[in-house]
Order: sequence, then structure tokens, then C-alpha cells
Amino acid sequence: MNTTPKEMNGAESVVRSLHAGGVDVCFANPGTSEMQFVDALDRTKLMRCVLGLFEGVVTGAADGYARMAGKPAVTLLHLAPGFANAAANLHNARKARVPMLNLVGDHALRHQQYDAPLSADVEGACAPFSDWVRSGRDAGSFAADAMAGLAVAKGKPNRIASLIAPADIGWDAGGKMAGVVAADVPAPLDEDALNAALKALESDGKTVILAGDSVLESPEALAILQGIAEKSGADILAPTSNRRMERGHGRLAVTKVPYPINDAIACLAPYASAILVEAAAPVTFFAYPGKPSLLLPEECATITLAGLGGDGPAALAALADRVGAKAAKPIDTALPPVPQTGAITLKNIAAALANALPEDAIIIDEAVSAGGALFEAGDCAAPNSWLALTGGSIGIGIPLAAGAAIACPDRPVITLQADGSAMYTLQGLWTQAREGSNVTTIILANRAYEILKGELHNVGAQPGPDALSMLNLDRPDLDFVSLAKGMGVPGRRVEDVTELMQAIKDAAKEPGPYLIEAAL
Amino acid sequence: MNTTPKEMNGAESVVRSLHAGGVDVCFANPGTSEMQFVDALDRTKLMRCVLGLFEGVVTGAADGYARMAGKPAVTLLHLAPGFANAAANLHNARKARVPMLNLVGDHALRHQQYDAPLSADVEGACAPFSDWVRSGRDAGSFAADAMAGLAVAKGKPNRIASLIAPADIGWDAGGKMAGVVAADVPAPLDEDALNAALKALESDGKTVILAGDSVLESPEALAILQGIAEKSGADILAPTSNRRMERGHGRLAVTKVPYPINDAIACLAPYASAILVEAAAPVTFFAYPGKPSLLLPEECATITLAGLGGDGPAALAALADRVGAKAAKPIDTALPPVPQTGAITLKNIAAALANALPEDAIIIDEAVSAGGALFEAGDCAAPNSWLALTGGSIGIGIPLAAGAAIACPDRPVITLQADGSAMYTLQGLWTQAREGSNVTTIILANRAYEILKGELHNVGAQPGPDALSMLNLDRPDLDFVSLAKGMGVPGRRVEDVTELMQAIKDAAKEPGPYLIEAAL
Repeated sequence: MNTTPKEMNGAESVVRSLHAGGVDVCFANPGTSEMQFVDALDRTKLMRCVLGLFEGVVTGAADGYARMAGKPAVTLLHLAPGFANAAANLHNARKARVPMLNLVGDHALRHQQYDAPLSADVEGACAPFSDWVRSGRDAGSFAADAMAGLAVAKGKPNRIASLIAPADIGWDAGGKMAGVVAADVPAPLDEDALNAALKALESDGKTVILAGDSVLESPEALAILQGIAEKSGADILAPTSNRRMERGHGRLAVTKVPYPINDAIACLAPYASAILVEAAAPVTFFAYPGKPSLLLPEECATITLAGLGGDGPAALAALADRVGAKAAKPIDTALPPVPQTGAITLKNIAAALANALPEDAIIIDEAVSAGGALFEAGDCAAPNSWLALTGGSIGIGIPLAAGAAIACPDRPVITLQADGSAMYTLQGLWTQAREGSNVTTIILANRAYEILKGELHNVGAQPGPDALSMLNLDRPDLDFVSLAKGMGVPGRRVEDVTELMQAIKDAAKEPGPYLIEAAL
Repeated sequence: MNTTPKEMNGAESVVRSLHAGGVDVCFANPGTSEMQFVDALDRTKLMRCVLGLFEGVVTGAADGYARMAGKPAVTLLHLAPGFANAAANLHNARKARVPMLNLVGDHALRHQQYDAPLSADVEGACAPFSDWVRSGRDAGSFAADAMAGLAVAKGKPNRIASLIAPADIGWDAGGKMAGVVAADVPAPLDEDALNAALKALESDGKTVILAGDSVLESPEALAILQGIAEKSGADILAPTSNRRMERGHGRLAVTKVPYPINDAIACLAPYASAILVEAAAPVTFFAYPGKPSLLLPEECATITLAGLGGDGPAALAALADRVGAKAAKPIDTALPPVPQTGAITLKNIAAALANALPEDAIIIDEAVSAGGALFEAGDCAAPNSWLALTGGSIGIGIPLAAGAAIACPDRPVITLQADGSAMYTLQGLWTQAREGSNVTTIILANRAYEILKGELHNVGAQPGPDALSMLNLDRPDLDFVSLAKGMGVPGRRVEDVTELMQAIKDAAKEPGPYLIEAAL
């Protein structure tokens, strides 16, 4: 069945070629225009097909999968509205430089001239959320287009590729296998930047090394970074949002640029030089009246040692060589005491989590307003992978966890999930249940868009009743235990930190997913 | 407080001007960039603010509101990802020619040059799902831009207008009130088309009058249409998808062009002429191998008596005059017998519904694969308004119901909701609960994307296990009663038609929303 047949349609040629190129998972929410792909996936049995009940689940899961598998999955989406439903989490994946290839079904080419109910500008819908968009033209070139998209996704930096798939070129005969297309390799080391970085480290002014992307994913690169910092006296920071950080005992604890604008400005104020390694110069999330957009001090010199398309670990190795630094041994952050009793607070939830985290856990961080306080748990715990919301578009946590669990079925996944954000793509719980994923979702239930209250204050307003009605999630209270039950995920609500710790332990023993609603 | 102050910021000028233009409801899912609007709405207290926990709820509700109120609401959305989340239901509203004005927050103008996490091409994201897009430029012209958008929305045909609202022009001082802008009026009657229609009616060949939009919303226009048909022997059909039909006893029972392609072709095969009245020539939803895209026979003459921008009722009155027809008295369709017992089938659910429908109910029809069978209930029941999925993008039912209930708080709303589609925007139940809306949601629980099984067959494929895993919604079964409970909506599951009828009666007595999961 899996030998390539002599005759195949366009859809089958795409599935077979992508599989030969290393893609073996398809996250899907198909519709009529994708039925030939459903058929081709069914007949070839080459890919694991994972259904999402909403397209935002599909792309969020493909993101989580790619962050952990280190390679793209393919998604199957349904015309312009299906793509739009998928777009918020594509936005997050794009900002994180995560590889993904979307197959976006469209009407048959001959049907596109008519204003059918689902007709819309698919290419226009894809463009703002993709790095590469192409429309398939015929069955014979369809697989080649898909492989071109795959190369874009896998290049450095990783990108979002969207291939529009008119229905008829999927069902037409004449599909042709296409081979792997070479992907962009990392930009070579910039010797001038290396010299400039060295000069900054040797200068009197304070220097910060801002390291992101693959540096944060590599404990070895982090150890070299630590060596450079120890030798030169430079500080180390990570961007505010990161796709994946390898954290916990045995790895360098890296502080992030804070989210709140005043904290971020204060954090970066001391520096005369900033060396960027797979990171951009930090900007504020939002603009505020009378506040700057750029976070580094105006007089700070910025040196891009490795751009977003560069090889950060290699650049750091070269810098270490020039500085005379070696990989340092990280100093483990001490575990906080196990909280004994009392209501759940951000502080004791962090301590509970740090103590409860099993070895090699994957943490999904969509904690939003609770994120600052909970982040520290990752450093003092056992080794873990920490995956965060990257593009600021809420509703990524539950799908990201579902996808990470597909990539790493033997690693426990723990999702730190703000309640308001959970409601965007809650359907991902069903995918977790169907796939039997070992995911524990901790809902941080403050029953508000808490972070927006701060933002309202930041723009100089005080909330009255109508404003609060748009920021509070009460009336009625959301009951996440019932919501989870409705999608086949067991759970419980806890109101005390000892109950919380017990629930985390119980969840680890439970096969498949579990949800804990933690009352804040 | 509600007198216009001398000094106001841009956001307040927009809120005050829109209110003076007749907009008094705002459906919102705001974020940081919309905080000035939250503040302005809060301080002025001029609009009812309704929160959706997801943007698709916001636009679906604004659609339902506009269909029943006959005027647009304003929505508040958050940057490109927030707009994308809203887009699927905007697509539906756009295809239905429903008026809506979206305020889409964006970064402050001076912040847009930086690649902040939420930066994306907002204008590009809006374009495929809007009829009109404009970006606000400064506080002083902001309200005038909003009023220009409002005029676009209110013109004939109604349209989707999206105004991009950079944060700083909202908070900047210098907002100026703007007056009402004249909207497009209906195109005048085309005398040539009138003569051609008359000729067709007098010819030997069979003629169909395909009437949509405002004709279907007007019992008076329908009575005149019936008079023309009786006088001339023409048949009457409605398009497959309609934003609103006034149905039930005392109104003309209109058959729709069927959704299944073979049925649609057969239905339209007899006609030599088609007279279009606020309707387009019907096209298939999708293309299929070897099947046409256009549904009318090739040799059928098409006469556009009133286009989508025309005045259908006036055109029909003119035609009646020329034909010598008068408004006819509709013949009421007999109520089917009350089903006595047994499992729930599409046939007996339709009978149960027809008997149970209270006077002046609003029916929301996202029944999808069950839609054909349930549609007849609307004709044999008490007078009702029937609102359907229009653009083929599933996930409209629950939000549409929420919005219709805001427009008509004294009318009962009953949603016929396919289970797979319900999962796209289930969060709308929470809005129904918060607003205390009198909505009964009947989940048609067949636990599959049933319609896609037919579509897979239509493209010549037979589903195997992997295909079925993408079309079936089992493993685990969705428990809608728990899902509803999680959002504060009481409900029950029924497996027998007598239980179903009892549940519909009980739901009518229950204040606020109720959900019935009907096992099919």
C-alpha cells in the first residue's frame, strides 16, 4: 500500500512527497474542499492524523509539535474562513519562528469565478499570517509546490508556509512525486560583529547579551554563554517571549526582559552595549502615552552577533574562543520550601509547581498575568522544556500542549493556563483526550482579564462598571471542571495549596489528560 | 454625563458620533489597544456593552443582532489576530449582506514601525472579510471615518465596514463629533428587466421566481409574490442560505434550492426562465468532478428584476401591477401530528419542533446535515423568524442566537445546532448566560461531521479508519450538558422524542438560556 503507485492524484502526490521529506504528522480540521487529502491520508496511512475541533487548535498543536519535534507538521485547513480561524495561533508560531506547512483547501479552480457561499480571497487571508504563500496550479506540479513550501518552513529562521490547494488539483490524476528542496542555511558568522562584541565586552560600560531562539534550546550553548558572562562580567537576558527554553537543574537560569513596560525599561537602563544573539532589539508589547517603544536606552550600542537567521550557538562558541571562556557549570537554583497550607497565591503556586515538576516535564506557559510569578519555578525544578506564548495572541496553551504531547509521548506536559485565554481554544482538551495525551492543565482561575486592568490603568483610565463588565469573567463564573468533563477530560477544582499539590500528584498518576482549576 | 463635552479624545468622539447615528449596542472582546474605547464606553454609558469570550462570538452576535434589529451594532476587536478570530462569522455576515461596523484596534501609529509581538498587517487581515476598510489617521478625523463606515454598513445592500483604530488616535485629545453620512439607497427599478420578467411569465416555458433578502423578510412582499405566482403559474424558490425568513402560519411557505448538488440540479431543471429578485443566480456550494458549478440549466434565461442592491418588494409590487396580481392569502401548512414515542429522528424532531414552537419565536438554523429535514418545521408552526447559516462557515448558531436575543429580548430564541459546528464558538453560551437571554439551544448530537461523509462520497472516495477519525466526533463523546453547565447554562440530554418535547416546554419556562442535547 505504501509503495508509490504509478498513477496517483495530486493530493496523494503531496502526501507521499511530504512524507518522504520527513513529515509524518498532520493536524487537521478538514472540510469538503480537503476531502481528497482526507482520502489520500486514509489510503496511504503515512501520517498520523490528529483532528482538532477548531482550526486554532490545529495550528496551536502543530506549533507545539514543531517546537518539541524540531521539525514541521502539516496542517489541513478549510478555505479562507478555516484559515482565519487558524490564524491567531499561526501568528504566534510565526513570531516564534516555528516551522509549519499549511495546506489550505480552496474551491476547484473552475469554481473560483463564482461567488459560492464559501468563496473568499484565500491568498489574501493567508498573506498576513504566513511568510510564504503559493497557490497550487495543477496536479503535476502540486507536490513540487508543497516541497518548496516545506523548504521555506525548514529554513533558518523557520517560517510559516501556506500552500493553497484548489480541490480539483487534488482529485485530478497526474500527481508527480517531488524531491526535497534545499532550505536556507543559517547566515554565516559576521566577523565585524564578532569584533564589535568583543570590544563591547572589554569596554568599561555594562554589557548585556540578549540571547534567544536556538541558544535557549541548547543547554550546551547556555553553558558557553554563562562562561562568556563569567569571564567578561556581562549580564545575560532572554527576550520576554520565547518558543522554548531548556531550563531547570543543570541548565543556566536565564532572566527574561520583563513584560510590564516600567520594569522592562528599568531592567535595561544600565547597559551601554547590547549583544544580540538570535534575538531582536527589544520593543514594548504596546505603546503607552508618554513612554518609548524601544526598550534599550537610546545611547546603548546594539551589536547583532547573530541575527534571527544566524547560528547563535556557533556565534557564541566563536565569541567564547575570542574571550578565552569555556562552558561553565550552572549553579542550580535552590528549590523553595514546599508550601504547607493556605489559599493559592502566585507565590505558593510557583513553589508548589517547582517541587512537583517531574523530570523532563514540558511546561506550557500561557499564564499571562500570573506568568511573571510562575516563571521562576522552571529554574529551580528538575530539567524541563518551557514553551511560552510568543505572539501575544491568547488561546495557545491548550493546543500547544496537545501538540507537544504528540511529539513527546513519554514526557509529562503541564500547562499553566490563564482562564480567560483558555476560553479561546478550549476545544484542544478534546484532542488531548482523544490522543490519550499525558497533559495536566492547571487553570489559573482569577476570573478576569486581569492583565487588561493593568493596561487600562497604563493608558490613564479608571474602570467603572461598564469597563469592568468587559474585563471580569464572572456573572456567571466559568466552571472549568465541567467544561473539561464535557470533552472527556477528568478534573477537579482546588482552593488550597495543599490540595493543589495533591492534585498535581494525582494527575501525574492518571493516564491521559487531567485538568486542575486552581482558584486564585 | 451624556452631553457632549467640549474636549474629548478620539475614542469618545467615535462612541458619541456612532450613538448619535443610531448605534447603541457594542459587542466586544477588547485588548490593550482598545482600552480607550472601553474607557469611553464606560464613561459615556451610551451603548449596551456585551462581552464575548472569543471574537467569533462577538461578530456572530453582532450579525444576529443586526438581522433582527434591522440596524448595525459596532464590534470591538483586538489587532490582526483578534480580527482573524472574528473573521469566519464576518464572512457569514458578509455573504448574508448584514450591516456591521468593526472597530479593530491597532498599535499606536508611532509603534507600528516596530515588530512588536502583536504587530501584523491589520489592513491586510481585514480586507478579505470586509467590504470597506479604512485606517484612522488622527483624533480629529476619527469620528468622521467611523461615520463613513457606518454609512457603508447601512447602505443597500448592507455591508461589512472595518475601521482600524490605532491606539494613540483613541487617546489623543481633539476628537470631533461627526454627523450622519448618507448611505447608498436601493438601485432604481429597471424597466427593461420588468418587461423581460413580464414576457417570461407570459411565455410557454416554465418560470421560477428566485427571491431573497428583504423579500423573505416581508410577509407583505411574500403575499404579493404569491399573488404573482398564482396569476402567472410561475414557481417560487428561495436561495439555499438566507439571513432571515419570516415564516409560519399567515406567511407564504417558500421552498429553498436544496443543498445537495443532485437535488439542486433536479429542482431547477424544469425552468426556461428565472426571475431574480434580490438573489443571485444559484451556484453550487462546492465543485465536484464532472458536475456543473451553475445550477440553472444552461438554456435557462436569467432576468435580474432586482439585484442584491435593489428593492425587491418594490420590484415585485411593480410586477404584480403589470401582471394584474394582488396580494394572495397564504394557505397554512398543516401541523404534523405530535410525535408520541420513540427514538429521536430527523422526521419526528421536525414534528416535535413544529408543535412546540411558541408564537414569534426566532429560530437559529445551524442544523447543517439535519437542516433539510428540520426546515419544514418553520412553515407549519406559529409565525416565526428563521435565521440561517449563510456563508457556509460553521460556528455561527450559538453567537447568532445570543445577538438575536439582545435585539429582541421579548421573543423566545430556539437554536437548531449541529454538534460539530457548536464546538467552534461554544463560548457564546456564556454570553447568553451573562445576558440572561431567553435562548434554548437544541444540540443535534449525531457525533460526526455527518455532512462531510456525504461530501467524501461526492468526490468519489470511501472512508477508511483514518478518514473516519477525521469525520467522527466520538472518542471521547462530547457531553454538551457538562459543557453548558461550565458556562452557567442549565441543560439535559434527551434520547426519546417525548423527552425532547418535554424538555422544550421546560426550557421555555426556565428564565435565561437552556441547552438540550438531543441524541440522534
